[in-house]
Amino acid sequence: MSEKLDELAEMVRHERLRDLREALDDLPVGEIVDFLERLGVQDRAVAFRLLAKDQAVEVFDLLDQALQHEIIEGLKDVDVALYFDSLDPDDRVRLMDEMPASVARKMMRHLDPRERSLTNIVLGYPSGTIGRQMSPEFVALPEHWTVGQAMEKIRRAGDEAETLYTLPVVDRQRLLKGVVSLRDLVSADAEAAIDSLLTEVDSVDADHDAEDAARLCADRKHLAMPVTDKEHRVVGIFTVDDALDILERAESEDAARHGGAEPLHRPYLSTPVLTIMRSRIIWLLVLAIGATLTVQVLDVFEETLEAVVVLALFVPLLIGTGGNTGNQAATTVTRAMALGDVTTRDVFKVFWREVRVGLTLGSVLGVLGFLLVSWRWEWHVGAVIGLTLLAICTLAASAGGLMPILGKKLGADPAVFANPFISTFVDATGLIIYFVIARAVLGI
Amino acid sequence: MSEKLDELAEMVRHERLRDLREALDDLPVGEIVDFLERLGVQDRAVAFRLLAKDQAVEVFDLLDQALQHEIIEGLKDVDVALYFDSLDPDDRVRLMDEMPASVARKMMRHLDPRERSLTNIVLGYPSGTIGRQMSPEFVALPEHWTVGQAMEKIRRAGDEAETLYTLPVVDRQRLLKGVVSLRDLVSADAEAAIDSLLTEVDSVDADHDAEDAARLCADRKHLAMPVTDKEHRVVGIFTVDDALDILERAESEDAARHGGAEPLHRPYLSTPVLTIMRSRIIWLLVLAIGATLTVQVLDVFEETLEAVVVLALFVPLLIGTGGNTGNQAATTVTRAMALGDVTTRDVFKVFWREVRVGLTLGSVLGVLGFLLVSWRWEWHVGAVIGLTLLAICTLAASAGGLMPILGKKLGADPAVFANPFISTFVDATGLIIYFVIARAVLGI
Repeated sequence: MSEKLDELAEMVRHERLRDLREALDDLPVGEIVDFLERLGVQDRAVAFRLLAKDQAVEVFDLLDQALQHEIIEGLKDVDVALYFDSLDPDDRVRLMDEMPASVARKMMRHLDPRERSLTNIVLGYPSGTIGRQMSPEFVALPEHWTVGQAMEKIRRAGDEAETLYTLPVVDRQRLLKGVVSLRDLVSADAEAAIDSLLTEVDSVDADHDAEDAARLCADRKHLAMPVTDKEHRVVGIFTVDDALDILERAESEDAARHGGAEPLHRPYLSTPVLTIMRSRIIWLLVLAIGATLTVQVLDVFEETLEAVVVLALFVPLLIGTGGNTGNQAATTVTRAMALGDVTTRDVFKVFWREVRVGLTLGSVLGVLGFLLVSWRWEWHVGAVIGLTLLAICTLAASAGGLMPILGKKLGADPAVFANPFISTFVDATGLIIYFVIARAVLGI
Repeated sequence: MSEKLDELAEMVRHERLRDLREALDDLPVGEIVDFLERLGVQDRAVAFRLLAKDQAVEVFDLLDQALQHEIIEGLKDVDVALYFDSLDPDDRVRLMDEMPASVARKMMRHLDPRERSLTNIVLGYPSGTIGRQMSPEFVALPEHWTVGQAMEKIRRAGDEAETLYTLPVVDRQRLLKGVVSLRDLVSADAEAAIDSLLTEVDSVDADHDAEDAARLCADRKHLAMPVTDKEHRVVGIFTVDDALDILERAESEDAARHGGAEPLHRPYLSTPVLTIMRSRIIWLLVLAIGATLTVQVLDVFEETLEAVVVLALFVPLLIGTGGNTGNQAATTVTRAMALGDVTTRDVFKVFWREVRVGLTLGSVLGVLGFLLVSWRWEWHVGAVIGLTLLAICTLAASAGGLMPILGKKLGADPAVFANPFISTFVDATGLIIYFVIARAVLGI
């Protein structure tokens, strides 16, 4: 498939637009999206304009948000209105969040009144909440209705609702009582009462954190969850496909920060080199400034180094091993927090676990290090290396386990506080430990 | 919520089992699962036995596979049969994959014949394929039927089918023609022909890689996808909740390997310390052995070091920066590959992008390094540091971008080949570059 996409890219490059138009005509929407997400900004604008209108609307809907934004920027106002109108209210709000406020306002004016008021409902919730990501287009069923009445309403609802498979059931005050599934409705008697089919369901408050809600939806295997206000009235519905989007975005963020860079929030091949560079430079600079600590530590111990130059040979190995141990712990705990397996209240449990893991790992590596270095150099140096490995591993594992929790407590993304900083921290403290042990054992 | 769970854990610890039973009775199934996933093996077995039978079956279904396995091990055969029978065929097979073959065979014998034959269908596909993860319980509709006939069949199918929302449509040879959604069926006339509602859909071959298929399902926002055999006959259906499970597992694996450890495949707090230690020790050892390269490189240049001890001060900073740059590139490309944005065929595109990113990053850091070091030490040393930063950043970014692709080409998990190894690689080669430049500039 990837070969076919390369062929299409060739057509754009050589401006064989007639061929390209024909090729695109036969391509399923999903593959057109894959194709566009591999092109640069200019080429993508060219290719997008070749699509048939109805194809283009579908493609636009599936496209990455950053690319939607770029395409919108390159279009005339009339066309913008078309694509903007075709989006669901929640997707529309997410796109608006990417655009300058003035453009967003202008686009809102072009919307038809019904769409505009739906969009405003979603816009009313702070960004980062599930209210901002839900769909206000749902079909709620009064609990005193019959299955027949419900099916009639569902048929009339047609294309408008976000989903018809999970239907919130409400009482006369519009308070959420539970949900019924279309599956149960279809097999039930027309005369049966709705509340006889009622099942309990997790619902989320509209002000709830979006990533949390998405994780809940995924963990509990719901196709959709009702979203409620403070009084437990239904205000929207949140579907599993939006949960998937949110989780994918969150995973990409975690992965990027884990590697010490800002997330790109767009497909790699479609991202300009300068944007990639910008996503990395700040982190590199911050980490390099942190690393100047190691220069200072070594400067302090320069005499020790001059006296026993052999000590310098093990510096990369020792701090590397410390960094690896710290990374392992930080990664495990960050992931466990992302999955909701660990919360900030578990800080002591995590610390105690990682101390034990670190001690065990440090003992194994320490003994090996002692034996190998004693054999190749001499046993004094071996003892220094062995003891340092034991100390560094214990320190690194426990610090690595604590950092993501600390980060979260400080209100930051756990991934930011974990991996990149753990290396810097372990590098500097590890060197101090190394030279203190060396001085003590070698009597310098 | 986490406080309530801690309270329950206290009850287990102090064997206040009557209180615990009452508390569990009122708890929603999802929260019981969260509670059990935070306990150790013994405590979990105790708490699980306190659940009412119907509650227990639901809880078991949502539990992490590793924990299902442990619970099964602690139960009597009669009870085992109950829980085993309550699972869907695809979940059952996934659990069987975790168990010793003899136990799995014994459990198969207890199944009723219908369930056993469904399980056997799934068991017929190699592990890692989507056939192994699909559900063989689907409702297919012949294309020449009417909506009324279809609805009749759907009503009769009741609880058996995995999903009724996406229904594969087949011709007389059982070849897949497309799907219809229950949503469209419900709003259509009873006399309408099924094929008038037909929509095209992505289907996957049963032998297709499961993670790939799950990603496709998520990207294209399908609630379910038909699974077909080589002749394009429908053999099963694959639903979005299973896609979520597969992706979560894959993300956890990537995250763990990214941090240089084997995935735990189970909730962190429920994992024994020794298991955590085992998931890390092999990686640490392999990386430490790799790091002995740095000892050897430094050993070779020991004379240079002795002549200019100040060079030793910058070793951690230089290799740290190289490691960070390499990690950034490796992370970005690994993630892009996981999302399907980059394939192994893009190797040159990726290389060329990363060379340019590395050169830009290296220039910025190199100039800063030159200025700072010249000011604090002398300009010769500054030149060495500046040039080394430029070279290391370029090397690290391009190697970091290539490694995941290379890993995949060699048939390994890209995450394994990327981050942990890139540091080791950059450490050793970076040191060589450093000392070669130092000798040239300082004329040693």
